[in-house]
Amino acid sequence: MDTSEKRKITEAFLKAAGAYEDKVTAIRRDFHHYAETAWTEFRTTSKIITFLKERGIEVHFGPEVINPQYVWSYPDAEVLAAHQKRAVSQGADAALVDAMQGYTGAMAVIDSQKPGPTVAFRFDIDCNDVDESKETSHRPNREGFASVNPHCMHACGHDGHAAMGMVLAAVLQECRELWCGKVKILYQPSEEGDKGAQSMVEQGLLDDADIVLSMHVFGTDGPYPAIAGTLTGLYATTKFDVCIEGKSAHAGAAPQEGNSAIMAAVHAIAGMQSFCQDGRGATRLNIGTIAGGTGRNVVAENCFFRAETRGSTTGVEKRLYEAAIRSVKASCELFGCSSKTRIMGYGPQGDGDADLASEIALAVKAVPEVKTSYPLHQNTGGTDDFAYMMQHLQKQGKKACYMGLLTKTAAGAHNGKFDFDESCLIVGVKSCLAVFAHYLEQQGR
Amino acid sequence: MDTSEKRKITEAFLKAAGAYEDKVTAIRRDFHHYAETAWTEFRTTSKIITFLKERGIEVHFGPEVINPQYVWSYPDAEVLAAHQKRAVSQGADAALVDAMQGYTGAMAVIDSQKPGPTVAFRFDIDCNDVDESKETSHRPNREGFASVNPHCMHACGHDGHAAMGMVLAAVLQECRELWCGKVKILYQPSEEGDKGAQSMVEQGLLDDADIVLSMHVFGTDGPYPAIAGTLTGLYATTKFDVCIEGKSAHAGAAPQEGNSAIMAAVHAIAGMQSFCQDGRGATRLNIGTIAGGTGRNVVAENCFFRAETRGSTTGVEKRLYEAAIRSVKASCELFGCSSKTRIMGYGPQGDGDADLASEIALAVKAVPEVKTSYPLHQNTGGTDDFAYMMQHLQKQGKKACYMGLLTKTAAGAHNGKFDFDESCLIVGVKSCLAVFAHYLEQQGR
Amino acid sequence: MDTSEKRKITEAFLKAAGAYEDKVTAIRRDFHHYAETAWTEFRTTSKIITFLKERGIEVHFGPEVINPQYVWSYPDAEVLAAHQKRAVSQGADAALVDAMQGYTGAMAVIDSQKPGPTVAFRFDIDCNDVDESKETSHRPNREGFASVNPHCMHACGHDGHAAMGMVLAAVLQECRELWCGKVKILYQPSEEGDKGAQSMVEQGLLDDADIVLSMHVFGTDGPYPAIAGTLTGLYATTKFDVCIEGKSAHAGAAPQEGNSAIMAAVHAIAGMQSFCQDGRGATRLNIGTIAGGTGRNVVAENCFFRAETRGSTTGVEKRLYEAAIRSVKASCELFGCSSKTRIMGYGPQGDGDADLASEIALAVKAVPEVKTSYPLHQNTGGTDDFAYMMQHLQKQGKKACYMGLLTKTAAGAHNGKFDFDESCLIVGVKSCLAVFAHYLEQQGR
Amino acid sequence: MDTSEKRKITEAFLKAAGAYEDKVTAIRRDFHHYAETAWTEFRTTSKIITFLKERGIEVHFGPEVINPQYVWSYPDAEVLAAHQKRAVSQGADAALVDAMQGYTGAMAVIDSQKPGPTVAFRFDIDCNDVDESKETSHRPNREGFASVNPHCMHACGHDGHAAMGMVLAAVLQECRELWCGKVKILYQPSEEGDKGAQSMVEQGLLDDADIVLSMHVFGTDGPYPAIAGTLTGLYATTKFDVCIEGKSAHAGAAPQEGNSAIMAAVHAIAGMQSFCQDGRGATRLNIGTIAGGTGRNVVAENCFFRAETRGSTTGVEKRLYEAAIRSVKASCELFGCSSKTRIMGYGPQGDGDADLASEIALAVKAVPEVKTSYPLHQNTGGTDDFAYMMQHLQKQGKKACYMGLLTKTAAGAHNGKFDFDESCLIVGVKSCLAVFAHYLEQQGR
Repeated sequence: MDTSEKRKITEAFLKAAGAYEDKVTAIRRDFHHYAETAWTEFRTTSKIITFLKERGIEVHFGPEVINPQYVWSYPDAEVLAAHQKRAVSQGADAALVDAMQGYTGAMAVIDSQKPGPTVAFRFDIDCNDVDESKETSHRPNREGFASVNPHCMHACGHDGHAAMGMVLAAVLQECRELWCGKVKILYQPSEEGDKGAQSMVEQGLLDDADIVLSMHVFGTDGPYPAIAGTLTGLYATTKFDVCIEGKSAHAGAAPQEGNSAIMAAVHAIAGMQSFCQDGRGATRLNIGTIAGGTGRNVVAENCFFRAETRGSTTGVEKRLYEAAIRSVKASCELFGCSSKTRIMGYGPQGDGDADLASEIALAVKAVPEVKTSYPLHQNTGGTDDFAYMMQHLQKQGKKACYMGLLTKTAAGAHNGKFDFDESCLIVGVKSCLAVFAHYLEQQGR
Repeated sequence: MDTSEKRKITEAFLKAAGAYEDKVTAIRRDFHHYAETAWTEFRTTSKIITFLKERGIEVHFGPEVINPQYVWSYPDAEVLAAHQKRAVSQGADAALVDAMQGYTGAMAVIDSQKPGPTVAFRFDIDCNDVDESKETSHRPNREGFASVNPHCMHACGHDGHAAMGMVLAAVLQECRELWCGKVKILYQPSEEGDKGAQSMVEQGLLDDADIVLSMHVFGTDGPYPAIAGTLTGLYATTKFDVCIEGKSAHAGAAPQEGNSAIMAAVHAIAGMQSFCQDGRGATRLNIGTIAGGTGRNVVAENCFFRAETRGSTTGVEKRLYEAAIRSVKASCELFGCSSKTRIMGYGPQGDGDADLASEIALAVKAVPEVKTSYPLHQNTGGTDDFAYMMQHLQKQGKKACYMGLLTKTAAGAHNGKFDFDESCLIVGVKSCLAVFAHYLEQQGR
Repeated sequence: MDTSEKRKITEAFLKAAGAYEDKVTAIRRDFHHYAETAWTEFRTTSKIITFLKERGIEVHFGPEVINPQYVWSYPDAEVLAAHQKRAVSQGADAALVDAMQGYTGAMAVIDSQKPGPTVAFRFDIDCNDVDESKETSHRPNREGFASVNPHCMHACGHDGHAAMGMVLAAVLQECRELWCGKVKILYQPSEEGDKGAQSMVEQGLLDDADIVLSMHVFGTDGPYPAIAGTLTGLYATTKFDVCIEGKSAHAGAAPQEGNSAIMAAVHAIAGMQSFCQDGRGATRLNIGTIAGGTGRNVVAENCFFRAETRGSTTGVEKRLYEAAIRSVKASCELFGCSSKTRIMGYGPQGDGDADLASEIALAVKAVPEVKTSYPLHQNTGGTDDFAYMMQHLQKQGKKACYMGLLTKTAAGAHNGKFDFDESCLIVGVKSCLAVFAHYLEQQGR
Repeated sequence: MDTSEKRKITEAFLKAAGAYEDKVTAIRRDFHHYAETAWTEFRTTSKIITFLKERGIEVHFGPEVINPQYVWSYPDAEVLAAHQKRAVSQGADAALVDAMQGYTGAMAVIDSQKPGPTVAFRFDIDCNDVDESKETSHRPNREGFASVNPHCMHACGHDGHAAMGMVLAAVLQECRELWCGKVKILYQPSEEGDKGAQSMVEQGLLDDADIVLSMHVFGTDGPYPAIAGTLTGLYATTKFDVCIEGKSAHAGAAPQEGNSAIMAAVHAIAGMQSFCQDGRGATRLNIGTIAGGTGRNVVAENCFFRAETRGSTTGVEKRLYEAAIRSVKASCELFGCSSKTRIMGYGPQGDGDADLASEIALAVKAVPEVKTSYPLHQNTGGTDDFAYMMQHLQKQGKKACYMGLLTKTAAGAHNGKFDFDESCLIVGVKSCLAVFAHYLEQQGR
């Protein structure tokens, strides 16, 4: 297509999307109200499926979209059952929940039936394990959409992401005469902790995609809404749990007969701190939680901690992770303990394609509400398992980019007071559409 | 009195005690069945009071016997209320429980109304925070008296101690024409963790005592039952909780903005390990439990640990405890954290009087069932807050001794399979009586 | 001047420099042969002064160029005397050495006597504390110019830098009719360990400079010789010595009476490792050497270590350095020790001006031997106290840049087998001249 | 012999010894003046041999008395040669030094030629690696016998021990008609650091001994001189050197390529601190010295430390030593380093025979100058490789005891101001003789 045709398509897209301005906010608030955490997004998934089906969109879910072998930190059956029950009690379609067979997430496929590229979008849908602020200064309280689920809160914007993904599908379906090729929209569960992306990739969902894009809400102090095509910034990461077993003994009578799992953990943790320096890139190491021991006067027979390593490159992260594991083993050897390490999440380094980032910055200029746009070197230590999807395509010489949707936020991500200016949501949908139209044009379509 | 008179008294004591052989075991099993932990011994105390009152013995309890200023690790009101309710449901006298005003423990006073010394005995009554073994090889299961209270088990013999103390009171009351002076029997709550003795001492219960004795069941591989007058062996100890507060931050985005309470704890614990050497005596240091952090990718804003220090002398223990606290402070300073340390229990070094220990070994030879007796240097790292009572008297030039009642045990103390040969119990009562008679004779009474 | 005039000047420069091709190598080899370490470059300085004076160049040295208040890690009088003596025995001019009054380094001033900018160049002249390889595969051995001074070796190319700085002065003097303004060339002592730059800056040598440039030999795997105008890459750094004093005691008889300085050092070092993560930039922390204690069975009464911190920004380095010091203090508090920390060198973050870096890359295209040139983001953790000079000018809105002279090297810098392809040296001189001409043209001169 | 005969012999002994009162002090001061450290006691040995030979006493030395396989911490050839030279320059007999073949120490054998037991005495002869105080308040300075050898000082009384051993031999030789059996007197080198005893034992010197005794000067606050037959008090000990090899790298450019031997040492040392608690006995752990690294900005490629472990029982020490080694290995594994551990000295737990200790206390009452005597439980953490000799005999059912010669001292052992009241020395000789006579009587001789 030529530029004028592109402009025409874009205009049609923007107009169609405009009709969803209230809807996208309403959906976001509904999801916010019934926040669901990793692998338990049964109500959320049910609502997505119903929305898509109502619009005649082909939708896949359950084991079709999730490869169980690559499901990290999967809850046990009891937990799943409780959440399924809660989902139904909060409005999920019981038959749909049943049909999911325990696996949340979904994929919409919109096929124009005309030859063309396959463009994939990914939106994450899980909430955080955070208690939402009870203060009245927190808008979701004042306006009645704060989370009703304890220790579950959308404090990272995935409620908005899911809503944008649904509206995007609706608009593309409505306008499917205008464009060519195929669009796949992945509604990914369990992004927090980098636990879900791999299970969708390994199910083959992206194998036929020519390009994959994702959009994430971020806070900004600059003009907003703004769109950034990010070049760097997704760190490689491993999330892991360490379980140390020692041997108890009476701490007064026979300390020499005990092997303290707490002491093994202490020296394991202290020892691994020296490996954060690397001439090749930045790293992060965090011991997030620790718990161990049975009683004050008993040599501790167990100690458990949750940790994560990050690195600005896959190699840097790998070195640090391996040192952490080595430190656990060495310390256990010293203290006569044994250890089990379980990987709870993994994401590689994720860099957007530089040319694609530039094109995105250019494309979204077609959306009038976008105040500014730019390719971004963002190197904050953040991770997103979308990196796994990007690498999957890039290894095959295909393109990928992570798009920032910059808006005003009330607090930092993962904070109980997080909230954002929802006017960005429809702008995000329009930007995705503009980028899509621009891409098609570039492909000569 | 002369020796033949003493023999007469002893014989009368032994005969009177003999009638309680089954009773002492029955009481022990009842207490075992309804084990109650530190400061919640409402049912146990109720049963003791009733038993004493039924025999016309003067009995004190509630704030009369406990000085609230020296109550370590006192549970909060909710916990107390729940346990009071449970006690009543398990057979405690509701009015008595009420009258205790939240403070468990009691004191019997048996006054011969004749001039003479005041002899104090102390028996501890609390159970351990241990889950009793469910195996059928564990006799209390087979014979139906295993603890019905979760995480509560008499795994240190205090059930037997309480029973002995009750029967001892009964016999002394029955025979009160035979002896002179006064006997005080303290039924002390909360010995485990060295939390209760000080509250009784500071209430003045022992201020008029000329001598204080206590008896504790121990396992032996030698002939049994046996009686030991211990010379050394009660270590000084401090039980303390450390609560570290740091500052949370996103571990990926801004680790430098967080102050990890877990890292502060790790280095505090590692640092204090170097202070266990002391040319003046033996020490112990244990980090029993640890818990900290809120999430894997959050710099930990809190960390809590339960610890204890022990020393074969008060001075040695003090040095180690102070080093531990210094290590916490130093590490918190480094990591930008603050800390609160709370003492949860304390007992000084406790050494029996050597001459008294020898006299005890001699006196109990009057009890035919005692297979052997001896003064004992026992240096095992154990603690008992009876040491606080001993020091209270010894500072005034009075005498004190801790008596071991050695018998066959099924497992080590504080183990879920602990049990002991109950035939020792009546022997313990008789030994206390024989020692009492011997002491009176020595005082020329 | 216009471009054609610039071309004329450059050509004259290049021609004049060409005559020094052998000389620059000969000087480099002479300096290599008689390598002198920080603050003891008496022979080197003497040779520089003589060379300059012979060409009628104004030269300053001794206290004129060094502010003694900012001399880090200055050797004691005995060491200086010994090196002065050695310098004379190795060919230094005794009178000049005397006139230096203990301070090495020099500054040439070449004044065109015509209005124009003041351009400063800085070349460092000290060697490393390294033993030169004795292997015959090491060219300086084969060709007879390996260092004769033990533990002194030019393993970082400063021999070449000094030689280039001398020839640069000679050429500018010869051609002084052709250009306008003033050139100052600083021959800086004691760059290794970031110990010398501040003393020259604080003596005011750069106060009238409009621009300051420095050139450093680096290894490359790409085409060479090449010139890079570096944008980033000079880390902020603090070099510091920590001296811990404890208290000795017999380790067997009374360990509790000793305060181990070694244990204080151990925990100080372990504790500071956790501060290498920073979301704002990269860091480095190294404990280079350690020495402590007096005997195996004595609690160590002293421990000394040499350390350094680095950071990609001044702020990041400051946080890490402060944490390191805090760790020393905290650990000393725990172990009852005292500590003294002495700063042995300091350099701030050094970033070249981006536009200047681009201009340099452009200017050196005039030098035919330069194979390639580019502005460089180089972020290797390296430090150079030239950063101090750059900041001095940049704070006043003036320009500064650090130029890489890339060539083939035989081994990494600071390695005993380091050597480099000397054909780069005359290219370096020519590049400095070309940059100078380009700069004058840009200033409209 | 009967008691009266014993009294006669003792009296003759005491009289003969009395003639050496000045001599024993003179010898002590001579040895103090020319103090020689472990394995370099060439002058001391030469003087002993000459003294013995002059009195016609059979004397063995060199490889005859030292088994080279069990020589711990033997100096290298250069060091030995230098000390041999110094010894000769300070009055040693050059031919004797030569005949020693590098091995210091000697044994006197005095054979009565009458049947009877073989009694062995051991006296140690080496000095400490200590600098003697230069203060005039230190008597050896005022009276001109302070050590002339740098870093060599008799700060543990071995100068006196050697002197006593020589005079003891002289008296026994003079009186050899009076007694029966055989006496062997071992002049042991290298006691400090527990390095020499094993080499004499493994050469078979004690194989025919029925009893072995040693005497050591100790300070006392009580009446003196006094004699103690010690029951306990010699701790088991291992002296060991740890040499860690890492990999150097530029700490700025590529810290990840280096393996810091200093960090490996730091965590090895920190890790082993937790193993000092043992319910079975007391322990000691000391890191006496540490040295590592090559330069401030280089990842340390080596680190060396000298350590020792002690335990009140052989088993307790073994556990601690093994934990220390395990900590080194574990930390090296973590940091990618390798380690070599070398045992530099070893001594087992040494307990005197209780009955022998009592007999000694009794026997020395025959010496009028002895103010008091007693069997002693001494548990100070001290070690003496005489323990190795004691165990050698005790394993065969023979007797051994370590005798304390208590006197007034000016400062603690191993302190540069150590000195003692020399009047004890002749009392020590007399006490040895009295014990010898008493023993013979007890054996029915």
